[in-house]
Formats: sequence, C-alpha cells, structure tokens
Amino acid sequence: MLAFEAAWTRALLSTGAVTQDDATKALQSIEAFDPSQTDTLAEGSNRDGLPVPALVKALRQGLADGPAQAIHTGATSQDIIDSAMALTLLAVTDKLATGLRSAISVLDDLRDRFGDAPMQARTRMQVALPATVSLRLAAWQRPLAEHLGRLDTVSNEISKAQIGGPIGLRDRPQGQGDAVAAEVARLLGLTPAPVWHTDRSGPVAMGHWLTLVTGTAGKIGQDMALMAQQGVDELRLSGTGGSSAMPHKQNPVLAESLVALARFTATQQAALAQAMIHEQERSGAAWSLEWLTLPAMCEATGTALRHLKTLLNSVDIMGE
Amino acid sequence: MLAFEAAWTRALLSTGAVTQDDATKALQSIEAFDPSQTDTLAEGSNRDGLPVPALVKALRQGLADGPAQAIHTGATSQDIIDSAMALTLLAVTDKLATGLRSAISVLDDLRDRFGDAPMQARTRMQVALPATVSLRLAAWQRPLAEHLGRLDTVSNEISKAQIGGPIGLRDRPQGQGDAVAAEVARLLGLTPAPVWHTDRSGPVAMGHWLTLVTGTAGKIGQDMALMAQQGVDELRLSGTGGSSAMPHKQNPVLAESLVALARFTATQQAALAQAMIHEQERSGAAWSLEWLTLPAMCEATGTALRHLKTLLNSVDIMGE
Amino acid sequence: MLAFEAAWTRALLSTGAVTQDDATKALQSIEAFDPSQTDTLAEGSNRDGLPVPALVKALRQGLADGPAQAIHTGATSQDIIDSAMALTLLAVTDKLATGLRSAISVLDDLRDRFGDAPMQARTRMQVALPATVSLRLAAWQRPLAEHLGRLDTVSNEISKAQIGGPIGLRDRPQGQGDAVAAEVARLLGLTPAPVWHTDRSGPVAMGHWLTLVTGTAGKIGQDMALMAQQGVDELRLSGTGGSSAMPHKQNPVLAESLVALARFTATQQAALAQAMIHEQERSGAAWSLEWLTLPAMCEATGTALRHLKTLLNSVDIMGE
Amino acid sequence: MLAFEAAWTRALLSTGAVTQDDATKALQSIEAFDPSQTDTLAEGSNRDGLPVPALVKALRQGLADGPAQAIHTGATSQDIIDSAMALTLLAVTDKLATGLRSAISVLDDLRDRFGDAPMQARTRMQVALPATVSLRLAAWQRPLAEHLGRLDTVSNEISKAQIGGPIGLRDRPQGQGDAVAAEVARLLGLTPAPVWHTDRSGPVAMGHWLTLVTGTAGKIGQDMALMAQQGVDELRLSGTGGSSAMPHKQNPVLAESLVALARFTATQQAALAQAMIHEQERSGAAWSLEWLTLPAMCEATGTALRHLKTLLNSVDIMGE
Repeated sequence: MLAFEAAWTRALLSTGAVTQDDATKALQSIEAFDPSQTDTLAEGSNRDGLPVPALVKALRQGLADGPAQAIHTGATSQDIIDSAMALTLLAVTDKLATGLRSAISVLDDLRDRFGDAPMQARTRMQVALPATVSLRLAAWQRPLAEHLGRLDTVSNEISKAQIGGPIGLRDRPQGQGDAVAAEVARLLGLTPAPVWHTDRSGPVAMGHWLTLVTGTAGKIGQDMALMAQQGVDELRLSGTGGSSAMPHKQNPVLAESLVALARFTATQQAALAQAMIHEQERSGAAWSLEWLTLPAMCEATGTALRHLKTLLNSVDIMGE
Repeated sequence: MLAFEAAWTRALLSTGAVTQDDATKALQSIEAFDPSQTDTLAEGSNRDGLPVPALVKALRQGLADGPAQAIHTGATSQDIIDSAMALTLLAVTDKLATGLRSAISVLDDLRDRFGDAPMQARTRMQVALPATVSLRLAAWQRPLAEHLGRLDTVSNEISKAQIGGPIGLRDRPQGQGDAVAAEVARLLGLTPAPVWHTDRSGPVAMGHWLTLVTGTAGKIGQDMALMAQQGVDELRLSGTGGSSAMPHKQNPVLAESLVALARFTATQQAALAQAMIHEQERSGAAWSLEWLTLPAMCEATGTALRHLKTLLNSVDIMGE
Repeated sequence: MLAFEAAWTRALLSTGAVTQDDATKALQSIEAFDPSQTDTLAEGSNRDGLPVPALVKALRQGLADGPAQAIHTGATSQDIIDSAMALTLLAVTDKLATGLRSAISVLDDLRDRFGDAPMQARTRMQVALPATVSLRLAAWQRPLAEHLGRLDTVSNEISKAQIGGPIGLRDRPQGQGDAVAAEVARLLGLTPAPVWHTDRSGPVAMGHWLTLVTGTAGKIGQDMALMAQQGVDELRLSGTGGSSAMPHKQNPVLAESLVALARFTATQQAALAQAMIHEQERSGAAWSLEWLTLPAMCEATGTALRHLKTLLNSVDIMGE
Repeated sequence: MLAFEAAWTRALLSTGAVTQDDATKALQSIEAFDPSQTDTLAEGSNRDGLPVPALVKALRQGLADGPAQAIHTGATSQDIIDSAMALTLLAVTDKLATGLRSAISVLDDLRDRFGDAPMQARTRMQVALPATVSLRLAAWQRPLAEHLGRLDTVSNEISKAQIGGPIGLRDRPQGQGDAVAAEVARLLGLTPAPVWHTDRSGPVAMGHWLTLVTGTAGKIGQDMALMAQQGVDELRLSGTGGSSAMPHKQNPVLAESLVALARFTATQQAALAQAMIHEQERSGAAWSLEWLTLPAMCEATGTALRHLKTLLNSVDIMGE
C-alpha cells in the first residue's frame, strides 16, 4: 500500500498535478511511515471497513496542505488495496513457483533413484497391471510442471494495476487520469489495464490456480498415504509422525496434510468466486469475501508445497 | 463416444494393427449403433460404474473376432469418456461463446439507447457520485468480452485427446501407442497431448471459466434487481414475472435467477476441484465427481446466458 | 401443491370465508387437475419465476367468480410452494429412513457372519492394532442408527406449514388468518408454526441431515474400497464392476460412488445455506438456490442408501 | 487438553489403575504445565501431525516411571483432542448464546422505538404492500430466538466425551475402560457417550448451527444495507464507515460484513462436512479438515454477533 501511495504521488508530480516540493515532502512522509503501527490501521478498519482512510490520515499527519494533497488525491481506497493485492499476489506466485520447482527437482531425483523399481499400477483402488515407479512419478511431476507453465496466464490476470478513482471513471486528476494510471502501473511494475473494480476475475483466477496446485499436491499425498500402507508396502518414509498411544507407528502425517489442504483450498474457491457478484460500483460484501479466503488459500498452498518437498525428501524406499 | 471409437478403429487401421476389411466391418457396426438405445448403457453403467464395457460389447455384437478386435482394442474406458468429454466441452464453449457475443451486442444497443442517461454511481450500497448509464454498461460488458478472450486458454486446457490405455502408459498397440494417439487426436480435431488421466486440471479449468461467466451474469442480474427497485427507479423492464397474490407487481425474476445461477455454479467448483485428488492411476470416486457437477455447471451457464439476453432485451428504460 | 390448494379451500370454507357450494366446485376443479400437464406450469415458471400463478389460473379456468375465488385467495405463491416442499421432504425422509433401516439390518447380518473375524485396525492409513471386523461394523452402524434418531429433530424443522400471505402477515382472510393457517396445517398433517418465509433454517437443516447421512455412507464406501485392495485383502465382493480393458478386474464401483455422492452432497450444503441470506420479505435469488440444490441432495442421498444396501449385500468375505 | 489429562489421571486413580501417590505427582505436573510454552507443542505438531505426543512427553518430563505412567496411559491423542474440542465448543456456544440474547434484546428496543413506523414490505426486490417496521423486526428476531432454542440439540451433539483409546475399543485400562470413560466424562461435565472417533456428526452439527446463526445475521445485514439506500431511506445509522475519496459518504460497512461472514461460514461447512468421510479407525486427512474450518467458523460467528449488536445499536431512524 505504501508502494502504491509513493507511486501515486510520483505520478501526480510527473503530470504536473503537484509541485516538486510538495511531492518530496509527501514522499518523505510515506517513506517514514512505520508499517508496524498497525493499531491505527486496525482501528480504522473496524470503523471504515478498510484501512485506507486511517492510513491516508496518518500519512498526511503534520503535513501542510500542499504536501498533504500530494498524497492519495484522486485515488480511492479500492485503487490502493487492489493494486497492493496485485503486488502481493505476484510476490506469492514467485514463492510458490520456487516451491513447484523444488518439488519437480526432488521428483527428478526420485525417478533416478527408484524409477525402474517395479510397482503395480492401480485403478479404481484395484491392482491393474504391472508397471514401474516412473509411471507414478511422471503422473505427479507433469501437472506440477504445467502449473508452472500456467503462471504466465495467472500473472496476466493478476498483475493489473487498479486505478479508477471513486467510482471507476479514472477521471482524476482531471484530464490526466489515464496518464497517471499508466505511470503508476509503470512505477509498480504492473500492467496498465482497464479498471477492474467490479470485475473480480483476477483474484478468482488466482484462487483457481492455487486450487490446481494444492490439488496436485493432494493427489500426491493421497497416493503416498496409500503406498505406505502395510500390505501395499510401496513406500517407506523416514522421520514420519509418532503416536501417543502406539510408539511403533510411523504415520504419514504430511501426506495426509496435503489431502486436507487440497480439500480446504478447493472449498474456499466456492466462497471466493461468489465475489464475482459484485454489485454496483463497489461491494463491501463481495470484496471482503476475497480477504476472508484468498490469503488463507495462499498460505495453504505455500504450506502444501513446503510439506510436499519435505515429504518427497523423506522417501527412503519406493516401489516393491 | 462413437466418434472416438470410429477414430480409434481408423487409427488402428492406419498403423496396420488391423486389416482394412476388419476395420470396415467395425466402422459399419459403430456407425449403425443406435445411440437412443440408452437402456443397455444405463444398465451397464449401474454395473460397471461407467457405460463403456456395455457400449463396447454392443458394438462388437454379432461381429466375427477380427472386426470385433478392431474396436476399442488397446483403449480403455477413460480414453473414450475423457476424449468424448473434451469434444462435448468444446461444443459447449461454442454455444456459450455465441451467448456471450449476443449479450455483448445487446449491451452495445443499450449503450446507444441509454448510455448518456444520468445515473448515480453507487458504492457500498450508497450513492457515491453522479455518472451516466454508460459507466455501468461498460462494467458489465468488459468482463464478458474478456471471458470470450479467455476461451483460447480454456480451449487449450480442455481440447486434449485422452489416450493412455489401461494404466496411462500409452503402450498399445504395442510399439505404436504414440502413433495411434496422434492419429486419433487428428481425426477428432483434438490436440495431441500427454496423457492426463490422473491430472484433472482441464475439467477444473473449464469449471473455473463457467464460474467466471455466470459470475459476471450474476453481477449484472444483481445490479438490475437493485436498479429496478422503487425509489431507485433506474430500470424498467417489460414482460417481467407476475405474482399470484399481488397482480400489480412486476418482479425481475430473470435478474434474480442470474444471481442464483452464479452462486450455484461457484459452489459446484468446490466439488469439481476435489476431483484433482485423483488417487493412483484412476479414481472412480474423484472422476465421477466431475460427472455430478460439470454437466450441471454447463447447463447453468447456458441458462444464465439465455436469461441474460432475454433480460437485457427486455429493458424499456435505463437511467434516471 | 394440489393438496395445499385443496386444504386452503377447505379452510376457507370452515372459517366461513367461502360458501359450501363455491368450495365444492373449487375442490372439484382442484381434484380434476391433471398434474401431468406440466407444459403449462413450465411455461408459467419461465415467465413468473415459479409455477403458482399458472397453476392458480389453470385451477380457476372455467369457474364462475365464486368458486374461482374459493381457490388460493389469501394465500401466496410461497405459501403453496413451501408447504408443498414440507410435505415432499417429509415423504423423502420416510423413504430415507427405510433405507437407513435396511442398511442397519444388513450390518447386523454382516456382524453375525463376520464379526469375529480378525482384522487389523488402521489409523492414519497405518496398521494400528489387531481387532475384529465387529469394530469396523459397529463404527459404520452406530452413526446410521443415530441419523435415524436425528429424524425427530429434522422432522420438527421441516414439517411446518408455511402460511403468511403476500408479505408474511398472515392477515388473510381478514381476521381469520390464524384460524385458516391452523386448519390448513391440520388438514395437511403439518405443524402449525409461525411464518418462516424469510427464515430458511428448515430447508438448511434438511440439507444438513442429508449431508450427515451421505457422509456416513461415504465413510463406509471409503473403508470398503480400502479393504478391497490387494495386499489388504479384508473384503471380497461379488458382482462388482467390470473393466473394458482389463477383464480380470473387479472394481468396487458402488463403494467409490458412495464417496463421490458424499462429497457432492456436502458441497451442495454450501450453496443451500447461502439461502439463509434471504433479503426483505421474499428473495427469488435466495429461494431458488434451494430448488437448485435440495432436490439433487435428496436424490443423491436416496441413491447413496440404495447403493449402500446393494454394496453391503454383495459382501462375500470380510476380515482377514 | 490439560483438563482432560487431569481428569484421566483422576479416573485412573478412582479405578485403582494407579496409586494415590503416583496420581498426586502426575496431577502436580499437569497443573504445573505452562500452556504458554507453545513452541514445544508447535514443533511436536509439525512432526506428529498433532500436539499430543509432545504434550504427554512434556507432562511426564522429570517424573519417575510410576507418576509418568499415571498420565495419559490408556488414552490416545484423539481422546484428548476431541474431548478438549467438545469443552471448547461448549464454551463457544455459551459466548454465542450471550451474543444472540443481546441481539434479541436490542431488537426488542428497536420494536419499541420504531415498530409502528410505516415501511413498505418488499418481495423479490419490489415494493409489495404497506406494512410497519415491526414486520421486518419480527422476521429478524424470530430465527435468532429459535437458534437459541436449537442450542439444546447442538449441545447434545457436541458435549460427548471422546474416550476410545488407540483404535476406539475403549478397552483401557484393561477391564475398566467403561468405568474410566464414565468418570472422565463426569469430571469434565461432558456426556458419557459411545466412542465417536470416526463419526464426525458432532462437529458437523456445530458447523451447521454456526451457519444458521451467521445466515440470519447475514439476512439482517443484507436487509439493513438495502434499507439504508438513498431512495429507499428506511434506515439511518450513526457512526458508519468513512470513505477515503468521498468524505460525504456513510457506508453501512458492518451490514456488509454480516453478509460476507455469512457467505464465508456457509462455504466452510462444505469443507467441514467432508470430514464425515473419515476412513478406517482414524483419518488424519479428514480430522485436520475440521481444524482448518471449525475454529474460523466460530470466530466468524462471534464476529458476526458482535457486529450485529453494534449495528443494531447504531440505528438512528427506522421506517419511512
């Protein structure tokens, strides 16, 4: 949000809407803001339904009118929150891409180690035909690689600067709305795009991708839990979970977690997608549904990829 | 499914796996199959969990061993069902694209008729600033056009031939699995692609797109229901729904339907995405979740676009 | 719906709001209505968002004013639809209770046949401690019996007559709204209750119970699919599903179906419960969400109990 | 969890399974445990999938074998976690009941203040018939009171002690499993009940009730947001949310929050109910789904009731 406000002030300066001096003082105030002072923002959120009025007030605190007006003027709460969300989601996809690459790489190792080991292929929970571990590993790895490939599409969906002003007209500052929007997007490294304040396809597309990623991790977790069963005996893990009552047991707890995280994430998508029904020029009810779901989905996906790597790295033996 | 079986037999012929004579007789049987005889397939589905064994048996009925073996040999139930689903979903997207184009076109008309009419922009259910009807219309039309644009991505996701054989090895007929797969894909107009029997990203991506489309239709419906309120009076519709108790009332029933269909479709995505957790080489439990949800989502989306067009066409007055 | 209209006319008669002669003619018309003439109702539903105005018009067709007014006068569409839904859901619970009792009884048989057979208890997908089949069977049977016991609560929730008139005031016929409501409830065998037109706790409670029932069936299905695995070998079924590619396979397709139906039903509850957000005195958007979900949930539960019985009856061997 | 362990030790003592001296030392250790040392438990959870093995180890730390064995022996992780969850959920329902009573009471005040004020009843987003504010207030209050009444049923569902030992046989300590279970339940103020380790109807019933409560709050929020619209003008609130771009605006942010919290909670029920498919004698995947959803649902409901009270208390004018 601070990055947005700084870019906004710079864009106001570049279009001549504010003076160099006012902009400099405004930027100093933005830079000096201590984001750990979250009490103010929380209190403001409780009152206003979002933290922006309180943030803007804090940024303008102690400034003369000129510099104060060089902050946020012409923008609206949704501009700053949605653009900040775009920046955050892009950062999240970077981390998740790293997690995907790690998992893919460990799967390469596993194929080298165990790919030729015999293993029964199983369909509909029944032994089908003899195969090797490589068949299963390829079925795990392929979608992970494709999810990486889908990141281009997802990034296109989410990397759009949101700049529309109070009702989405992008008419501020007067006559320069488009110029400011383009400059803010450039400064933030976001795509210039039409206003999307009432079209939530971007966040929903992000949720969809998270659902795919956790879904594949969940498939791997389910497979590994099944492979680790006594009687099936196609997988031995090291360092698995202990039991308070049965010390002899080694539970594939991370594999089970992957299944739970996948089901959790898939379900959140149902709530997130309701946000598409975003009435009029801004819906608090629809918008805040995104905040109740999308961060949790990002965390669940990050956790799933972390667990997936740990789990795959803990394989001692695979195949019969 | 019949198209797949015919393509399969032709591919077996083209690779020399079956003789011209056997293939001809096999194709005659496939062509002669009366798809309205669904009793046989329903009964088989009840027994086997899917209609393919019964279909194959029916297609081979009365054939000598040679022609009988020129049908389905080397394929598996999932190959035929998933490839048939790909063909069906592509046909569905064609119809839905037409619906989207219609709605976009009616919105053009509405902009011409009412775009300059004054209308209050409303944010968070409160009057924000004066605007014109064109602001609202643009916010309805833009995502519809973008959903059309997203069809390229969706088509890429769903138009993949599924050819893997019993466990996904694509090793049948021996030594010619890849050649047959490529030929079947070519004949069906599908993309040759790696086997995706356990990776359900394609169907889930289709569901995601349906969620976006119905979501935007739901947003429009919600807006129109709000605009039609007495006191707001920004919309008058002709031919709206009657009441059994209050004959004076004119209810925006199609607008309400759009909201319901959007919430319904968004929720199905939660069940559909659970299908990603597709254990081992084929999961009946995960797979059949797709059949319980995706057809209903397609129908809901088709209905939504039909209602949307009717509703937009019924606008008598828009704006203050 | 016809039962409601007949009861309504009789209640109008009993309170003196209509004459015996008009009531008799009205009841003759209601009785003579051919419910298979659904075209009229479908067309009316398309126009009005519900079938009641068309139905009332059809019932009054050809009647003089007196008898015509002895039909539906003072009621509203929601009265008839919700009360009819109550009657239907009660009939559904009767059928499902029979299904539950059947499954419980087959489980008694299985305990007699296999209860003492040794079987490993498994926790977190790992062998835990030795046990007998009776442990598993009891864990299947107990919740089914408790779901039967919960039917008292569910019936209380859903068996309420809905009588409120156009906006829920229950003020029609004038001065006799309560008397008519009580009489209609009595005639229909429903509980007299405050109007619940905007409080959808009843349908949501029904959905909750369906979720519990399919959930337990899904747990049994999941267990049976796991028990039937080669290597675990704790279950042998007769007459299971065949494969088009691997004739040697016997797939536990009904067990898998139970899992899919449980996940499907659980997800519908998310859409059904959105119907609680029922704005103002009647929400078409919220109300029709119930019609998109609750019938499908009832069908899924009926199918699940039917499959459960067939599956349990197909057990040849259980235990090691 | 500490309450459970203390009750367990006391029950072991009462049945003679441990000596007075060992029990005393065990209880001293349990009492002395500093629950703020959550690092140990978090680390253990990461390793074992739940905090119990780490907790038991910490409680036994430094004890001789006798007192150490007087802790947890014969119980299992699920006994302690599920019973602790029952205690927690009961405490939650107490708080929520208070919130419901507060809202009901404020609605009484509002009826006294504004009940006779005229207000148009609205159905399907259209003016239906004239009414008074009391009609709307009664429709808000009635389900809240009924949700309070439903607490008896919910409490019955969730207040069951979970005592089954490692696989649910309740056979520990040998020959005294039932006696210990009864005593632990008595000490904790829970109902003695059959083991429910694999039957998750209780938590799902709790989620259902939370869905009903937030649903009604969401209905009220939706109504209030609609009433506050300019043009409808049936509601004036004090102290509503401000806007960063339009200082003149007063946004009904709490009303919108109620809608969002209702949709969020309803959706979580879809994930929670998947926990019914709880395979074998304990499913980490199904069980942990409850932990990902039920606490968030409790928090959302508490927040909704808090917001509801604040919102209702902020009413300045209601009715035309």
